[in-house]
Amino acid sequence: MNDQPFTNQATNQATKQSTKTAEIILTGDRATGPLHLGHYVGSLKQRVDLQNHHQQTILVADMQGLTDNAHNPTKVSSNILNVVADYLAVGINPAKTTICLQSQLPALAELTMYYSNLVTIARLERNPTVKSEIQSKGFERSIPAGFLTYPISQAADITGFHATLVPVGDDQLPMLEQTNEIVRKLNSLAGKKILKECRPLLSNASRLPSTDGKNKMSKTMGNTINLGASEKEIREAVKSMYTDPNHLRIEDPGSVDGNVVFTYLDAFHPEAAYVEELKAHYQRGGLGDGTTKKILEECLQEMLRPIRQKRTEFLSDKAQLIEILSKGSEISREKTQQVLVDVKEVFGLNIL
Amino acid sequence: MNDQPFTNQATNQATKQSTKTAEIILTGDRATGPLHLGHYVGSLKQRVDLQNHHQQTILVADMQGLTDNAHNPTKVSSNILNVVADYLAVGINPAKTTICLQSQLPALAELTMYYSNLVTIARLERNPTVKSEIQSKGFERSIPAGFLTYPISQAADITGFHATLVPVGDDQLPMLEQTNEIVRKLNSLAGKKILKECRPLLSNASRLPSTDGKNKMSKTMGNTINLGASEKEIREAVKSMYTDPNHLRIEDPGSVDGNVVFTYLDAFHPEAAYVEELKAHYQRGGLGDGTTKKILEECLQEMLRPIRQKRTEFLSDKAQLIEILSKGSEISREKTQQVLVDVKEVFGLNIL
Repeated sequence: MNDQPFTNQATNQATKQSTKTAEIILTGDRATGPLHLGHYVGSLKQRVDLQNHHQQTILVADMQGLTDNAHNPTKVSSNILNVVADYLAVGINPAKTTICLQSQLPALAELTMYYSNLVTIARLERNPTVKSEIQSKGFERSIPAGFLTYPISQAADITGFHATLVPVGDDQLPMLEQTNEIVRKLNSLAGKKILKECRPLLSNASRLPSTDGKNKMSKTMGNTINLGASEKEIREAVKSMYTDPNHLRIEDPGSVDGNVVFTYLDAFHPEAAYVEELKAHYQRGGLGDGTTKKILEECLQEMLRPIRQKRTEFLSDKAQLIEILSKGSEISREKTQQVLVDVKEVFGLNIL
Repeated sequence: MNDQPFTNQATNQATKQSTKTAEIILTGDRATGPLHLGHYVGSLKQRVDLQNHHQQTILVADMQGLTDNAHNPTKVSSNILNVVADYLAVGINPAKTTICLQSQLPALAELTMYYSNLVTIARLERNPTVKSEIQSKGFERSIPAGFLTYPISQAADITGFHATLVPVGDDQLPMLEQTNEIVRKLNSLAGKKILKECRPLLSNASRLPSTDGKNKMSKTMGNTINLGASEKEIREAVKSMYTDPNHLRIEDPGSVDGNVVFTYLDAFHPEAAYVEELKAHYQRGGLGDGTTKKILEECLQEMLRPIRQKRTEFLSDKAQLIEILSKGSEISREKTQQVLVDVKEVFGLNIL
């Protein structure tokens, strides 16, 4: 951990961005569990790089986390600081990235209310991402209103920061379409450009599979490796990894396609050439799953050890985490409040 | 108009309520047009009385007005001060009643977001009031999300003030049921009483018909008499009133049932015995519609003259209206903010 506390740096943030581009990046996570290797590959690594070149805000989406967890709110509240510690542990620097908490930004709730009048229920029901989430969560007709309408709330998040670039997986593209529809409707009502359309920033990394190779990563399935996983948890997760079910004897040729161990080696092993050699060996026979798993485990242990240590240190000083989140939220409150004033002006509601 | 400005009285409000009951009343109007005689009979008269006995807040619901007027927002924004002037003109006293503007109370938007997670879309679609409004507005599947979900926003309004008594027409009872469902769900999550259930205060007055006797009162139908109607407008509205279509000659017996002139005489004429005499005369024949309309017109002219004058005076000093609304909104912002803190506590979100 740095000697100079992050919080002091954070206050200088606004003045430090002179060398950055004009792109404004908004990204974030639902605070419904600690972050894992899937997040690391899919977005966290990218954010650590992006913070050096762009104005980046990360929103800890506690309110969105509640849209399908209102009856178990601890799942959200207990994970807010975990997620912040995850960010810091992988190298997100609050002097370069504003980290804020959604529930601390009332303007986002107000924007959501105004935008709700510009989007029909039929349009929300057609959203492919929400459709498939509703199916996978088994909501059917008992969808909480907050869940069906969360794309409107996301539009409030994105436009509330005038974000121009939003890192997403391709399954999230319908969310940006919905946001840009709202932007166009509002600008058309205003007769001028009040809000900015955003573009997706698609990650180069392909989606990391779960350790079981078939289900979506989920805490309850126990098929993820969290950034704060202990040595033992890492060892056991790798041991249980899905490989090639037809690779019964070491001397048999094995398949690397769909073999989670090799997918993880591709994603995390620093020496690509060495991984290629291993693949060739495995395919022609003579390389056992025990050996490949041992290589992967060593690689993950080495990578996650410093992250775990930093994470533990950060979590041991909750006051500092809260300070970082408070400072970031304060900066963000002002930004989003200004956008709200502009949107209320379109509706003629700045009379007081 | 009183010599002492309302605004000075308004600041003393909190300390003046010692003689009032513990009931907290929330009422209000969508700011989508000037108020008319239907509002006067159905609620304004009652509010003028209630303010002497209870803590009463009137919410000018501009955000709710936008739920079906987002593409014509001037309909809302241009009527906010008209509605406040209507209140003052009929005798609502800002020293006794807090008058506030919905869009000035961010906590209401935030409460709406939290409550949205406790209500399903199916439940909203079953709401009989919303159902019939959707039909009458011809929305079908293109209902704005904000419109379908406005009962949640109303629940935020009511609970945001800990209102215990809500004056409503019986068509609005489903709204209070929805509110109380949310209250019970939230209290059950909290394991204690955070929010209060509310009771309806049903008006004794029967609903005033429109001047055409068949359609719902509406500005576009031109079948209302606004509180600020000119002498000429009152005269013409009474002239065009629906009577008994079979009462062709003065000497014929006429019917008073469904005869709008008599319904209005019942509602507004100060001498009930005289109205009964007129009815008997009309029913046995010999009393012409011209005469009954003349009697009604005189009565309405007399009643509306001072209201119209006061309304004009109030509207000539917009700064004072804005001051009243600002003061009331400031008081209300604090109250609703406290409820928000309590609700966020249930979800564990007061960590910063």
